[in-house]
Amino acid sequence: MKFCSNCGATLTRRIPEGDQLPRDVCDTCGTIHYRNPKLVVGCVPEHAGQILLCRRAIEPRRGYWTVPAGFMENGETLQQAAARETREEALAEVEIGSLLAVVHVLHAEQVHVFFRAALPVARYAAGTESLEVALFDAASIPWDDIAFPSTDFTLRRYLEDRAAGSESHHFTTIERRR
Amino acid sequence: MKFCSNCGATLTRRIPEGDQLPRDVCDTCGTIHYRNPKLVVGCVPEHAGQILLCRRAIEPRRGYWTVPAGFMENGETLQQAAARETREEALAEVEIGSLLAVVHVLHAEQVHVFFRAALPVARYAAGTESLEVALFDAASIPWDDIAFPSTDFTLRRYLEDRAAGSESHHFTTIERRR
Repeated sequence: MKFCSNCGATLTRRIPEGDQLPRDVCDTCGTIHYRNPKLVVGCVPEHAGQILLCRRAIEPRRGYWTVPAGFMENGETLQQAAARETREEALAEVEIGSLLAVVHVLHAEQVHVFFRAALPVARYAAGTESLEVALFDAASIPWDDIAFPSTDFTLRRYLEDRAAGSESHHFTTIERRR
Repeated sequence: MKFCSNCGATLTRRIPEGDQLPRDVCDTCGTIHYRNPKLVVGCVPEHAGQILLCRRAIEPRRGYWTVPAGFMENGETLQQAAARETREEALAEVEIGSLLAVVHVLHAEQVHVFFRAALPVARYAAGTESLEVALFDAASIPWDDIAFPSTDFTLRRYLEDRAAGSESHHFTTIERRR
């Protein structure tokens, strides 16, 4: 961030009066440009015991498998965001269920939120951001080709909880870079 | 958002190729400026059955009561954000507990997340953003002077759950403007 999005002047990086952290400050119009974590929202769609995964057609991690997920938009709830991402990436209609996982991805400045979801009808196909979409048995999940640590965490907690007959939610923090 | 924060050129509002929604696009350097919901994080600190509330020294809703909460920063977890906000606004050290409430505040483009919290030692005072900080019995909470609908929702769910001896989490959506 180099220029003020409000007036176009050059920004200065400094701690504003009364603040604790350095911010991008505009000395021309006085705007302080805060940067905050972005929400990435997704779900684990299940149909007849199988889990719907998407193989990514875009970077990062093109060619690797993930659950449907993406950046939350303004004007929608977390649940609506998870259903929309599933519609876009897997052309599938899901019913969003309980909260499953919250992953703080510190280096990416993101908070990932995942829900359980039901896929009542096994109708799906690759959206523009997916190379392919498929249903997997728990035993056939491609663990070595999962796109992100947050996807791996989420799928493992999902399967553990399902085996235990529970629907709890799980927090974790990821700091490492690949 | 009128100017590109990357190159300083004037922005155009249009739907980028392959996208579904209008964005602020820079036709000079090609940057697409997405706008996403911001996370506001807080907690309900309890000490010996009483709840710690802060009376706001800043707008919006100056003079009204709320639980400690504020914008999440990059590089911290939700739990760390809730504890930091309590330190800043109430000069109090809390132990963050279970997830209590998630409130989609659509018109403000925010997602509010609240946790239960323990205040082991009743040591607190007004931070720079608070006029006063005080412990309240459930029966003495100033319901008519609560700052925000999300605070009201969170406190009511907290007390209901406590009365029922449970620690569940609750989602809601707020669309109205004051």
